[in-house]
Amino acid sequence: MNYRTEKDTMGEVQVPADKFWGAQTERSRNNFKIGPEGSMPAEIIEAFAYLKKAAAYANADLGVLSGEKRDHIAQACDEILEGKLDDQFPLVIWQTGSGTQSNMNMNEVISNRANVNSGGKLGEKSVIHPNDDVNKSQSSNDTFPTAMHIAAYKKVVEHTLPAVEILRDTLLTKSNEFKDIVKIGRTHLMDATPLTLGQEFSGYAAQLDYAMKSITHTLDHLQELALGGTAVGTGLNTPEGYDVLVAKYISEFTGLPFVTAPNKFEALAAHDAIVESHGALKQLAVALFKIAQDIRMLASGPRSGIGELFIPENEPGSSIMPGKVNPTQNEALTMVCAQVLGNDTSISFAGTQGNYELNVFKPLMAYNFLQSAQLLGDACISFNDHCAVGIEPNLPRIKELVDKSLMLVTALNTHIGYENAAKIAKTAHINGTTLKEEAVNLGLLTAEQFDEWVKPENMI
Amino acid sequence: MNYRTEKDTMGEVQVPADKFWGAQTERSRNNFKIGPEGSMPAEIIEAFAYLKKAAAYANADLGVLSGEKRDHIAQACDEILEGKLDDQFPLVIWQTGSGTQSNMNMNEVISNRANVNSGGKLGEKSVIHPNDDVNKSQSSNDTFPTAMHIAAYKKVVEHTLPAVEILRDTLLTKSNEFKDIVKIGRTHLMDATPLTLGQEFSGYAAQLDYAMKSITHTLDHLQELALGGTAVGTGLNTPEGYDVLVAKYISEFTGLPFVTAPNKFEALAAHDAIVESHGALKQLAVALFKIAQDIRMLASGPRSGIGELFIPENEPGSSIMPGKVNPTQNEALTMVCAQVLGNDTSISFAGTQGNYELNVFKPLMAYNFLQSAQLLGDACISFNDHCAVGIEPNLPRIKELVDKSLMLVTALNTHIGYENAAKIAKTAHINGTTLKEEAVNLGLLTAEQFDEWVKPENMI
Amino acid sequence: MNYRTEKDTMGEVQVPADKFWGAQTERSRNNFKIGPEGSMPAEIIEAFAYLKKAAAYANADLGVLSGEKRDHIAQACDEILEGKLDDQFPLVIWQTGSGTQSNMNMNEVISNRANVNSGGKLGEKSVIHPNDDVNKSQSSNDTFPTAMHIAAYKKVVEHTLPAVEILRDTLLTKSNEFKDIVKIGRTHLMDATPLTLGQEFSGYAAQLDYAMKSITHTLDHLQELALGGTAVGTGLNTPEGYDVLVAKYISEFTGLPFVTAPNKFEALAAHDAIVESHGALKQLAVALFKIAQDIRMLASGPRSGIGELFIPENEPGSSIMPGKVNPTQNEALTMVCAQVLGNDTSISFAGTQGNYELNVFKPLMAYNFLQSAQLLGDACISFNDHCAVGIEPNLPRIKELVDKSLMLVTALNTHIGYENAAKIAKTAHINGTTLKEEAVNLGLLTAEQFDEWVKPENMI
Amino acid sequence: MNYRTEKDTMGEVQVPADKFWGAQTERSRNNFKIGPEGSMPAEIIEAFAYLKKAAAYANADLGVLSGEKRDHIAQACDEILEGKLDDQFPLVIWQTGSGTQSNMNMNEVISNRANVNSGGKLGEKSVIHPNDDVNKSQSSNDTFPTAMHIAAYKKVVEHTLPAVEILRDTLLTKSNEFKDIVKIGRTHLMDATPLTLGQEFSGYAAQLDYAMKSITHTLDHLQELALGGTAVGTGLNTPEGYDVLVAKYISEFTGLPFVTAPNKFEALAAHDAIVESHGALKQLAVALFKIAQDIRMLASGPRSGIGELFIPENEPGSSIMPGKVNPTQNEALTMVCAQVLGNDTSISFAGTQGNYELNVFKPLMAYNFLQSAQLLGDACISFNDHCAVGIEPNLPRIKELVDKSLMLVTALNTHIGYENAAKIAKTAHINGTTLKEEAVNLGLLTAEQFDEWVKPENMI
Repeated sequence: MNYRTEKDTMGEVQVPADKFWGAQTERSRNNFKIGPEGSMPAEIIEAFAYLKKAAAYANADLGVLSGEKRDHIAQACDEILEGKLDDQFPLVIWQTGSGTQSNMNMNEVISNRANVNSGGKLGEKSVIHPNDDVNKSQSSNDTFPTAMHIAAYKKVVEHTLPAVEILRDTLLTKSNEFKDIVKIGRTHLMDATPLTLGQEFSGYAAQLDYAMKSITHTLDHLQELALGGTAVGTGLNTPEGYDVLVAKYISEFTGLPFVTAPNKFEALAAHDAIVESHGALKQLAVALFKIAQDIRMLASGPRSGIGELFIPENEPGSSIMPGKVNPTQNEALTMVCAQVLGNDTSISFAGTQGNYELNVFKPLMAYNFLQSAQLLGDACISFNDHCAVGIEPNLPRIKELVDKSLMLVTALNTHIGYENAAKIAKTAHINGTTLKEEAVNLGLLTAEQFDEWVKPENMI
Repeated sequence: MNYRTEKDTMGEVQVPADKFWGAQTERSRNNFKIGPEGSMPAEIIEAFAYLKKAAAYANADLGVLSGEKRDHIAQACDEILEGKLDDQFPLVIWQTGSGTQSNMNMNEVISNRANVNSGGKLGEKSVIHPNDDVNKSQSSNDTFPTAMHIAAYKKVVEHTLPAVEILRDTLLTKSNEFKDIVKIGRTHLMDATPLTLGQEFSGYAAQLDYAMKSITHTLDHLQELALGGTAVGTGLNTPEGYDVLVAKYISEFTGLPFVTAPNKFEALAAHDAIVESHGALKQLAVALFKIAQDIRMLASGPRSGIGELFIPENEPGSSIMPGKVNPTQNEALTMVCAQVLGNDTSISFAGTQGNYELNVFKPLMAYNFLQSAQLLGDACISFNDHCAVGIEPNLPRIKELVDKSLMLVTALNTHIGYENAAKIAKTAHINGTTLKEEAVNLGLLTAEQFDEWVKPENMI
Repeated sequence: MNYRTEKDTMGEVQVPADKFWGAQTERSRNNFKIGPEGSMPAEIIEAFAYLKKAAAYANADLGVLSGEKRDHIAQACDEILEGKLDDQFPLVIWQTGSGTQSNMNMNEVISNRANVNSGGKLGEKSVIHPNDDVNKSQSSNDTFPTAMHIAAYKKVVEHTLPAVEILRDTLLTKSNEFKDIVKIGRTHLMDATPLTLGQEFSGYAAQLDYAMKSITHTLDHLQELALGGTAVGTGLNTPEGYDVLVAKYISEFTGLPFVTAPNKFEALAAHDAIVESHGALKQLAVALFKIAQDIRMLASGPRSGIGELFIPENEPGSSIMPGKVNPTQNEALTMVCAQVLGNDTSISFAGTQGNYELNVFKPLMAYNFLQSAQLLGDACISFNDHCAVGIEPNLPRIKELVDKSLMLVTALNTHIGYENAAKIAKTAHINGTTLKEEAVNLGLLTAEQFDEWVKPENMI
Repeated sequence: MNYRTEKDTMGEVQVPADKFWGAQTERSRNNFKIGPEGSMPAEIIEAFAYLKKAAAYANADLGVLSGEKRDHIAQACDEILEGKLDDQFPLVIWQTGSGTQSNMNMNEVISNRANVNSGGKLGEKSVIHPNDDVNKSQSSNDTFPTAMHIAAYKKVVEHTLPAVEILRDTLLTKSNEFKDIVKIGRTHLMDATPLTLGQEFSGYAAQLDYAMKSITHTLDHLQELALGGTAVGTGLNTPEGYDVLVAKYISEFTGLPFVTAPNKFEALAAHDAIVESHGALKQLAVALFKIAQDIRMLASGPRSGIGELFIPENEPGSSIMPGKVNPTQNEALTMVCAQVLGNDTSISFAGTQGNYELNVFKPLMAYNFLQSAQLLGDACISFNDHCAVGIEPNLPRIKELVDKSLMLVTALNTHIGYENAAKIAKTAHINGTTLKEEAVNLGLLTAEQFDEWVKPENMI
């Protein structure tokens, strides 16, 4: 491989000759061989491109950057946003906790790209300087958390929430379709009084509604951007009005309602907004786990399980048991939920560990947050398309189970009292008989009264 | 010990003769010798007393309970609320996951108490029946989650939030007091550009503001009550309008804005509201950890640490090192935060494990939630009173550190460029000299320019 | 209340006149009103009494304490071990993270008790001085972690492990009893090939065997004691040979194989032994959850669940549904497991937070560890006695399910290939028929071949 | 793209014409668009290749597969192990929780590769059938957990443990180098009695020793393989002796001491071995966090921190603050530790969720385990090479701090008592003087006595 010599404040570095990155990126690349190369999330790269462009615009408006330089920078940023420079960001998550070299990676790529776009050569820094121009009015300490918020907010509102909404709609549709199907309820996994299948599904839809509301509640905090705080939150080396203006440009370029954070010290030193929003994603995971678990239990069988639902058969379920079909979408979804719970542990722990003016667990927090938001969205769509939309009730089985249930006896409480009703249920249970038989045998009511009082469809 | 014979649907049980509880409480007491007796949180007992009274009122209004019975029940509930029957609730957390026997414990105590109040004897069930009267229009499955919400909401708004607010106010006051004290900033634990001590403290206050807002956002969900759902969410055996009315009475009796949950299936089978609110408490813990950790690091020393702050000296710090004083309040607070993070793991896990119409991890969720809310509130008050209010700056030390800092060089970026500025800092670092000396030595600017451009007080 | 005036290095303190504790205990008591008073685990108090007595013996043997003083201290320690002074330890968990005041609480109580035993008065410090005598050759920094190890080790070997063993034995006994009961297997919750109920239970017993082995593996580390390290691990102010000797005395007094830690710096600054052993307790929780969950699913019903097992009926299961019985022991046990998982999060987090020569999350770690070890032991016994020993197979139900299973078709793979076997199973599934019918209909084998090849009892 | 038509028991599927995978892989690929394609860890693919080859050998030895078929399968496996077919495994982690389609992916690729190697065409299944030959005597349910154990064990013993050992050796070397450097100790972040820098580092080395021992303790369980259990643990469709023999071949091919699991029901339905070993990896993370945190705190500064250590300067530390250098390796390492703590939450949760004969969170558990083991190993090497080996003491700073410390007063306890010693320290602290000055002023000892008794080098 050919190399060119790049220089930074620590000296010379050999950089692959054809790459747009420079000395600092290369140092980090060599010093952090931890996990797969290039693992810094693409969403962070994209967010950085937005913010570098916005910074150039704000700087130019405020007279600290020429219009020409602004345009050079913006052009390079647009190329990054178009995906033309995807192979120029080789850094890993497990680098400095401020993401400094990822900020520099962006500065270097933009600088070099601008120079090349202007007919210059890689490494010249003649047209656009990575620190003095691209990074003007910025620090890693405010750009990286800004990129985290842009990426996280964008992923949640453009991917996760719409995906949850689709699944919620499907579950609500099913709830309506199933509204007249009376089935046995189960509490403690044990037979209980009846409800409709539609009611059961309405609970699932409600859980997702609450989760979406909870996530939405956190967006106010997440839409606040650290940019303008620079090194420690004071905004050193930024022109007056810069923080508000740069947030306005980011908002304009992304089409999302970002604003400048009112307290930049909090925004650099703590990432409670990430903790907060991920807490809500975790709630979503909790809800989805319950839903996916219920549905696979209700669909269990086909002959030795609960068997009240049919779910789509998508793949042969076993390499040894012919004809077996499994609730694979439920499994993928519940695994995603387990992952999100773990990610929440990592994020919360990292959130506690800010010191003084900076939290240096930023890449970790970004990585886990974006993974959760992506996986939850993907899994909701997958579960929706390959499972939820195809759920059908097994009507004969549902009827069979409700008919023979002993808990219909609860309807008698108001007529003969809890203790007499209990006696009927217990006797039928021991004798393997029906409630009606035992009710009459025990002389507690007549067959006619039983038929009038014990109607599953009146118990819902 | 003397015993009396009580009976339930499973047969006879010997119950301590002088206790107001009955057969079912005694069964649970004997069957679950797990952890300390009586560990079911007192807040749950209290909440149950509110809800049983409210149910009696709603039942009476709707014509399914006589006014006389209502008053008997209400009187017993009031006695419980006054703490007169505290020793009548011996059950543990680690019982059935629906809390059924805790519901029955309440039913039995109220029933027996009402009977005794009316001149009857323990165990007679003549005036008020535990199931048919006290538990009328209820099930463990809707009462226990209702008690969880009442207890959790009450604890958060009456204890946790006010405590956080007190600490936030102190930190804000300190932030104002310290607003002109210029000090060195630190990022990555390393010297950075200056800020004021007031700015640093403003970040802490902001974190608590966000945490309070986050907790408050979750209260909408937490104020919804399951009561009226009975066994599986359908509201079987409740009179029309009962759920709304009983929530109104609970709201009236507690003075808190409880409402009936719009979807009772969700309210029994999932406890996402608990997950949601505890997620916000966890965010508070994350914030408090950062604050407490920062303050103890800033106060470290007295001679070999950072030493920028003085905190109150409350206890001799060592049994072997004479004269040692330690940041003990910070330690108690950070331990509480670590506890809350663990509680969040338990609650989230439990939240995923609802099955069908019921989640049977209710007592665990209540226990962990209430512990977190209590400890966070207690620790905020303790930290506030015994540490935060007494924080004072060590002005000579603060000045010494800012004066000799190398990161003031950042002020030169806009004058001589990042690379030249870096050269000055590095040379001073190696030579153990000042920035000014090296700036002049390197011929990059004059002493006068240095004095004009590098002013810590202009860098904040 | 009457008070007496006590003094420590910070000045005077008013102490309740009749209490044996002194100034420092009272300071901590007043400064840390966090959580319930006296919440420091009794096991820690007990462990402290053992170690104070052992220290007195070692000090006397090594000539730095008189025999008379040794005996005074030992007598007071014995009284504490006998439970005579239980109300003298009012401190909370949420105090200084080194547990310094709990160490001083012990020193003060022993000192005062010794003085009173010798005819002196509370507060005189004339016979035995809390620091100079009781705490001789010690520091909070080495006594508290020593107490943690003594308490944790003792609890695990005397309570947790024996309880697990009892449950393992019961499950193994059941496994043998059930060894000829052929039942349907289930994977993905779906019907699979058969196994015996005994085989299923053998898996549970194996899990507990592994968990016990895993816990036992960690005991080597846990039996190492920090005592002798004093303030920072160097053993300052201890006589030569003290650390080995004091461990020997602790071992003798407790009857457990404690040894001195080879590296005292690790033993004060890190609590990886606690992290390690609790990690193994967490594995036990993971195993118990699976076992308890399986058994309640297998016992679900009675008419609309799996219904293969009967478990003991211990309490009426519902306050509204007459005759309902629930798997309450399984619920208590799974709640305990969820608690242990949360405790592990707290302990691991706390474990990371040692700084320099000390980890100041000691009381938190002790509290969570002891809670886990206690609850796991209690819950194993409770589950064993009230559930596991009474598990019985529902033979007709087991036979019914295995007979109609489609997965018996797997036995045909080796005769007619996977794809043909799958065709038979799918056709039977769609038509609601038996495998045999469809096997013959499809012309893939004869009825005789079917009967010969498809025998559940040969598939196990 | 061109496609060919493949068929499985559910019907026809269009598969990319040039790919070696078949119908089932393609189904899973289309049904699970969750997270990045091909995210199933390469280590699992590799482990599958070992086990498929071993199964072919065992099957051939036991007479159920021809030698010719064995060789065809083995050749294809070898090609996979050589990395020649890396692009043939497109499946994701978030698929069925049994990994069935990853098992089938392997079966299909081997089958097709063998057919092509024999001159046949893709999709023909003529020479080697994916189910009947490659999967002979196997099920996904025993192959996937076997692959998990092979991959996990291999990663831990070949990557993680050797990396930890290297770092441990470096820390031990440093401990020896630093054995005579007396420095101030710190407890509660506050000045304490002195120790040597070598003693401090010995604690770090000891932590890693314990962690390695703890990990090693778990390997016994991890080396047990499920293979031979087939669908539910009974070993249906395997020849006599197969399980032992196949483990022997795996052991031979990998050079690692794998054995067959004594209880196959546990091995399929629970993954406690993964929980156990990851628990030990988590302990390692806890230890590494403490070490990395200490070292960055000790190296903090250069002028406003602790400054006792120099660590290598690897990258410019700030894009805005010229000349700043940060402890970036410590940050990467602590982020990895935070990740591992989160992974432990996911793994433990997943571990609880086995049902009946199968745990269906296998790919999640494998993914998190392998990530932890990889990252910990990588980060240890990175931290070792770019930080630990270059750690140097800042001798003047260390001497300055120890000399002015007040905690040297502890040496006087045995001469003048704790209370007098405390008086000296407090007075010096208030007056900003030295211990010696105040000792003499207070008339408690002479200057000569002070010099004789207070020698830091005698306090270690």
